[in-house]
Amino acid sequence: MHHAIDESHDPNLKSWVESANDETTDFPLQNLPFGVFHTDDEEEGDGRIGMAIGDRVVDLLELCEAGAFDDLDDEENPIDEDLDAPALSILLMSGRERWGGIRDRVRELLTHGNDELAGEKELLEAALLPMQDCRMLVPGEVGDYTDFYASVHHATNVGSMFRPDNPLLPNYKWIPIGYHGRASSLVASGSEIRRPCGQTRPDENAPPVYGPCKLLDYELEVGCMMGPANERGSRLPIERAEEAIFGICLVNDWSARDMQKWEYQPLGPFLAKSFATTVSPWVVPIEALAPFRTPAFVRPEGDPQPLDYLDSKHNRESGGIDITLEVLIASKQMRDKGIAPVRVSVGSFKHMYWTFAQMLTHHASNGCNMEAGDLIASGTVSGPEKESRGCLLEMTWDGPGKPRKPIELPTGETRTFLEDHDEVILKGWCEREGYRRIGFGVCDGVILPART
Amino acid sequence: MHHAIDESHDPNLKSWVESANDETTDFPLQNLPFGVFHTDDEEEGDGRIGMAIGDRVVDLLELCEAGAFDDLDDEENPIDEDLDAPALSILLMSGRERWGGIRDRVRELLTHGNDELAGEKELLEAALLPMQDCRMLVPGEVGDYTDFYASVHHATNVGSMFRPDNPLLPNYKWIPIGYHGRASSLVASGSEIRRPCGQTRPDENAPPVYGPCKLLDYELEVGCMMGPANERGSRLPIERAEEAIFGICLVNDWSARDMQKWEYQPLGPFLAKSFATTVSPWVVPIEALAPFRTPAFVRPEGDPQPLDYLDSKHNRESGGIDITLEVLIASKQMRDKGIAPVRVSVGSFKHMYWTFAQMLTHHASNGCNMEAGDLIASGTVSGPEKESRGCLLEMTWDGPGKPRKPIELPTGETRTFLEDHDEVILKGWCEREGYRRIGFGVCDGVILPART
Repeated sequence: MHHAIDESHDPNLKSWVESANDETTDFPLQNLPFGVFHTDDEEEGDGRIGMAIGDRVVDLLELCEAGAFDDLDDEENPIDEDLDAPALSILLMSGRERWGGIRDRVRELLTHGNDELAGEKELLEAALLPMQDCRMLVPGEVGDYTDFYASVHHATNVGSMFRPDNPLLPNYKWIPIGYHGRASSLVASGSEIRRPCGQTRPDENAPPVYGPCKLLDYELEVGCMMGPANERGSRLPIERAEEAIFGICLVNDWSARDMQKWEYQPLGPFLAKSFATTVSPWVVPIEALAPFRTPAFVRPEGDPQPLDYLDSKHNRESGGIDITLEVLIASKQMRDKGIAPVRVSVGSFKHMYWTFAQMLTHHASNGCNMEAGDLIASGTVSGPEKESRGCLLEMTWDGPGKPRKPIELPTGETRTFLEDHDEVILKGWCEREGYRRIGFGVCDGVILPART
Repeated sequence: MHHAIDESHDPNLKSWVESANDETTDFPLQNLPFGVFHTDDEEEGDGRIGMAIGDRVVDLLELCEAGAFDDLDDEENPIDEDLDAPALSILLMSGRERWGGIRDRVRELLTHGNDELAGEKELLEAALLPMQDCRMLVPGEVGDYTDFYASVHHATNVGSMFRPDNPLLPNYKWIPIGYHGRASSLVASGSEIRRPCGQTRPDENAPPVYGPCKLLDYELEVGCMMGPANERGSRLPIERAEEAIFGICLVNDWSARDMQKWEYQPLGPFLAKSFATTVSPWVVPIEALAPFRTPAFVRPEGDPQPLDYLDSKHNRESGGIDITLEVLIASKQMRDKGIAPVRVSVGSFKHMYWTFAQMLTHHASNGCNMEAGDLIASGTVSGPEKESRGCLLEMTWDGPGKPRKPIELPTGETRTFLEDHDEVILKGWCEREGYRRIGFGVCDGVILPART
């Protein structure tokens, strides 16, 4: 199954929710991403499934209780149980027919001219909440979180710093390299990020020390949330890998570079990453991205072609996604002075060496069972140009042997790595002539000082 | 809180369940480990919490419903909800007072001379099930699974093979090295293990290939299941780390060595491990192991002492545990001929370079939140002698540059790595003069041929 362009992508489709028709919104009727929310006056335990439309959150449980989804319901697997949950996982387990059906029905209800809800003043008030009054949670209850390393630009840059003689290891162009991440410390956008303490060895001739991380970084990544995938012992052929994708979100894989450098051999990054990973609140269904699919990375001459199990015509032709990705930073001084966050980098997800289909197929190629709600992140998205590097480690790197070149903020402050109270904002969106803009909202976090 | 020897360890404590008084049982009244089970005629969804005593499984939910735990109950957090669950996690979230109280009460009920259940024929039949009629499940619903690398003997042996020039990396003696494992593919003892397929590069001058793993191995490990631990952003000081331990079990971290060798740089093992990890069914409460505590590994002269955050008097004096660990193998030919499984290795957990308290403290030292139900494995337990090496990679290694030396089975068959239909059985037990033997049961798996 390949997600094709159809009438749901028609740019002329308008909603009676006026803010959804604004050209600049992330959330037109063509998007309808899922998330988990509660209102400001509720508790975290009241989290339930919502959908974004313009500047509103659709409370799907309210619509459900009003009978909006009766035609999709099923006694053995009631829709309200899928929606009255503090995570998308239960809905995701129910499969694409269920979540796709809900999305189609909401699109129908919200389309300009549909008057099913027109007279229902009370229901409208309860079911179409102002986004600013809603608090968004981590969208999944993520069973397993995997982080890949799929940008060859990132791998080459970082490899040049950590292993100057040997930047890109021999397996890189054959294997979508990845590792297991920590699921417990996935946090919602807006969560404060405590600067971690950890063991580092700043002086190779002295013992290591334990203390606050000095080289704190963000990593701009794209995440893929899974629907039902494969049983343990079976695989996920590349032709069918996209069937297992529910949707796409943004991920900030905060990284303590000094801890990472000291700890990562031979078993990979561990505490340098596991203190927190921020996930954007809205998961954009993969179907909504059909107009923005691009060919997979075209390998330069001399690079090997992927082995058969990682190769398909569809993947070559449209395995990529052109998502524009932007990182912005605001220091405390900037916020205090009312200066808007400043762009640090901008690039596109289309430059990744490996596609999500390849990552998923490889992940399941040993019979590892992938489950609904799993989060698969791409690894840092860095493009070929300097301005599209997805972390400060790369952004302030000026070449082998040279001192780091800090970035300048509008206040005159400089940053080589993150300082306390810095805010990092990731944004992502898809644009293409003839289609509505599809946005991912923001993935946001502020650094708190280390606990001493 | 340090788990002290008290009257619950008195070897003279007998049960009216006669099989519990057998000197050879793993499960005397002094043990009382928790597990998740259903009877043979029930479904997996009927899993609930049980306790092992001699050759019986105590159905704790039955006892609960008969009122046995009324004095421990709490309207806001009912015991039956902790027990009527297909995983220990909910009970573990309730904390030590809850699970310790249940264990104390069961000990009281089952002690020789206690006649509270004497007249209750029907209840006894329902609540004391023959172990052979019970099917054991993965004990936790493990949120995160972490695998350490805490045996210096293992790290040195493996390092010598993978990096002959550089076997033990400079961080090893400073950091309890670990990595995140895959939680979804944790399986119960007795589950069949499908030989994985994967990418390997047997010939460095030719492209890699995708196909069945040729170097399949077991890894003998000890697991630690967590109770409530630390909030995100806070730590777990070493003096309090053992408070966060619920209990100890056995783990077989099946490993595809050819896949591991090709994939593991720079981010660590991934698909070489994530196809399956077997967990023993019974989690032995840490309190039951008090008589078997040993000093932490005494570092030879020249080794650095642990940094302060990884050091405490209690840990130095009794951070270790003397668990005898044994690996047995039975080939299909052996089973067909009625030949008993043969011992491949035997050693003790007391030789580990890092203790569980150090592993947990390090894990949380960056503010990573550890959660009830998390599983922390030790890494392969190899001791100083050749017969105590915990995997075939080490066991059949005859030194640098030499050809592998296969082990011989009683049938005349030989094994360098595992063959299809081989059964691997891990066993563990604690023994000490003046105390009852405390056993861990078995952690068992049979290899199935790869799917082609």
